[in-house]
Formats: sequence, C-alpha cells, structure tokens
Amino acid sequence: MKIDINQRILSAHDAKTAQNKHLLAAKRIVTINLMGSPGAGKTSLLEGVMSLLSPELRVGVIEGDLFTTKDAERVAALGIPAVQINTRGACHLDGSMMEGALAQLSLDEIDLLIIENIGNLVCPAEFDLGEDFRLCLLSVTEGEDKITKYPLMFKDANAVVLNKVDLLPYVDFGLEQFYQDLTLLNPQVSILEVSCRTTAGLPELADWIKQCVAAKRQEMAIASIQEKG
Amino acid sequence: MKIDINQRILSAHDAKTAQNKHLLAAKRIVTINLMGSPGAGKTSLLEGVMSLLSPELRVGVIEGDLFTTKDAERVAALGIPAVQINTRGACHLDGSMMEGALAQLSLDEIDLLIIENIGNLVCPAEFDLGEDFRLCLLSVTEGEDKITKYPLMFKDANAVVLNKVDLLPYVDFGLEQFYQDLTLLNPQVSILEVSCRTTAGLPELADWIKQCVAAKRQEMAIASIQEKG
Repeated sequence: MKIDINQRILSAHDAKTAQNKHLLAAKRIVTINLMGSPGAGKTSLLEGVMSLLSPELRVGVIEGDLFTTKDAERVAALGIPAVQINTRGACHLDGSMMEGALAQLSLDEIDLLIIENIGNLVCPAEFDLGEDFRLCLLSVTEGEDKITKYPLMFKDANAVVLNKVDLLPYVDFGLEQFYQDLTLLNPQVSILEVSCRTTAGLPELADWIKQCVAAKRQEMAIASIQEKG
Repeated sequence: MKIDINQRILSAHDAKTAQNKHLLAAKRIVTINLMGSPGAGKTSLLEGVMSLLSPELRVGVIEGDLFTTKDAERVAALGIPAVQINTRGACHLDGSMMEGALAQLSLDEIDLLIIENIGNLVCPAEFDLGEDFRLCLLSVTEGEDKITKYPLMFKDANAVVLNKVDLLPYVDFGLEQFYQDLTLLNPQVSILEVSCRTTAGLPELADWIKQCVAAKRQEMAIASIQEKG
C-alpha cells in the first residue's frame, strides 16, 4: 500500500518533470540542481560564483525554501533574475513547483538555470527536477562521514563541492577519507574545494560550470541537427 | 487526495506512537528527541555529555540513520546500550521504527532514552516520537538564519543547543540575531551554548537534562498517585 502511494506521487511528479525538461530543452537552457545540508553554503556559493559566470552566461535562479524569501532576495540583489518557491514546510522541490517557477522566468533571456534546492541531504536526492547536472555541496564542518551516511545524495552528483576549506585547521575533517569514500561511491564525480568566505576555488568552480554548459549545448546542437536531418 | 494520504500515514504513525508512549511511561523512562542538520554534532554531543549523566542516570540511545551503523557504534563504544534504526533512505523516524527499536532495549535498565533522529531540519519536526523533550542542535557554521528558515524545527523545541561555539571567531554567525529570532519564535525555549570539541558548556547541558528528567519523574509520580487514589 505504501509503495502504491509513493508510486502515484512519483509518477505525477515525473510527468511534470518531463514537461519542464522539454520546455528547458526547447529554450536551450542548461540546468543545474544545487543541493546540500542547511547551512552548507548554497546561497553563498551562488553569490560568490555569479560574477565569474557573466558576461558569457546569462543566469537565472530558482530558490527553494520552506517559508522565507531570504535566499531569492540575496540572489536578486546581484541583479540576477530569481524566483522563490516556498514549499510551506515540504522537504524537497518537485515538478509542479518547478512548473510554477519556470512560468515566472523570462526563459528567452537565460542560458543557465540554477535551482537551489531545500537544505536537506535526504529527500531532494530522490526527485529529478529535469536538471542536466547535479552539484552537491558539503562543508568541512559537517564531517567527512556524510558521504557514506547520505550516499543517495552523493552517488549521482556530477560534482561535489567541498566548502569552508578555510576552516580545515579548526575542525577534525578527514580529507583523505572524504576523497576515498566519495570516489569509491561515485568514480566519475568532479571534486572541487572552495571557500565562499575567502573566494578560494570559486574561479575553478566557475570554469567547471562553463565547461558543463558548453558540453551540454554542443549535445543539444547535435540533437537538433539530427532531428532536422 | 494528497491530504488524505498524509492523514492515513500520520494516523498509523500516531497509533504506534501512543502505544510506545504508554510503554515508556509504564517503565518510567524519560525520553529526549535529539534533532538537527547533518553534521550539527548530534553524535558528538552524546559522546560528550554521556559521562556527565552517569551514575545518576542510566541512559539508553536509539540512533536513527539512513544506512550506516556508525553512530550506534560510537555510542556503544562508551558502554551505553544503543540500538540502530536504519531507515534505508527515509528522512525521519516514525512510530513503527521506534516500536522495533524499543523491543531491542532492556527498558527496565534505563532511566533516560535519547533518540538521535535523522540529520534533517525538515521532516523529523513533523513526527512526534512520544518524546517528553525536544532538543534541537544548531551549529554556528550553519548560520543564524536557520531559525527563521526552518521554524517548524525550532518552535517546539524545549532546548536549542548552539554547538561549535569555538568556531565563532572564524565564521559570520549573527549571535544577537540568533537569540532574537529564536526567543521571538519560541519564548519558552532554553538556549545553551556548547562546543563538543572543547567540551565548553557540556556540564550546563548535563544539568539541564538532569533537571528535565527530575521534573518529568515528579510529574509521573504524581500521576501515578492520582491514578491509585
């Protein structure tokens, strides 16, 4: 019975997600789903990397949060189009919420859409939002054991960004264990070390994002030629 | 429809929780539900406070985790009876899981049961596990904005423990804003500052726990006399 209920919720979500994905592809928008714990630094990461992505990329942001509009306000303060989704207590974003947010963005003016998911290492991992890339953020203050304790979050990530590396001297983070566990769980993952506070590593992260966008756009262009042919 | 499904899941949970609560009361066990983000320091808190609670209190621990048994092993290494619940990916503990875990503990040998919930600021807040007290842990590295962003977690807490205060000089945590937002949201809450790393504040936390246990036991004793009378 429990499985039936979950399947029904998931299949409604999947139908909306397929529709959103189709719309994003038609607009040639590349999408990144940014996930991590509360306080891992997701919004700070967006604030830090945004100026490094322009002028090449026109970025739009969807901000997921339970109740407040604080994060969308922080991103909008940078002059970036940002839409806030308030889940009113729900623990992840889903296809219907995404549909509503996409309707509020000028999609013709966006190359890259970044979705900042709810701060949660559990539930968001199970909901594909139609993204092209998954970027998971972990901060050194959370501990290296999070990789093995929340494997669903980290096993499908295209990149894991280790944040707050400026605090490494003050915490007991097992850096070697982190690399070992993560590459065992997800051998293809890109791993980047950053500090949003000092800005260390943010240029490399911006390069990684640009490379992802370029690769995806090439893929889209080839698909478009094949469709026409 | 969605509401119906949720109500059905919740009412099955509630029935189990009522049953667990009855069992715990019959055994005169006081229960604390310990919640917080991944990496807030829940298990470290248990490790730090445990020796300060004995010999007055005989403690048992239920450890919630998605997949691993790491946390229960850490607690058991202290000689404390600990049962691991693996939710296999689920984002919170519920009444049925609690029932299974309680069956594995020698309840006649426990005065205080601490339940370490799944690392998650969202979902566990909605599931009463029959606890007498809710203890929510927030670390300074997560940011003071978590109080207003995750209000369901903090508004019903009996105590909020602010962890990692040794890192305050190295992070941008708004301590004043934290106190202001938290006491506005939850005027009755006890607030304790600790560092599990330096052990600062742990004796005060142990005292708070002992006072809670003493108060609840007195309440239980009075209820028992009234029942007999």
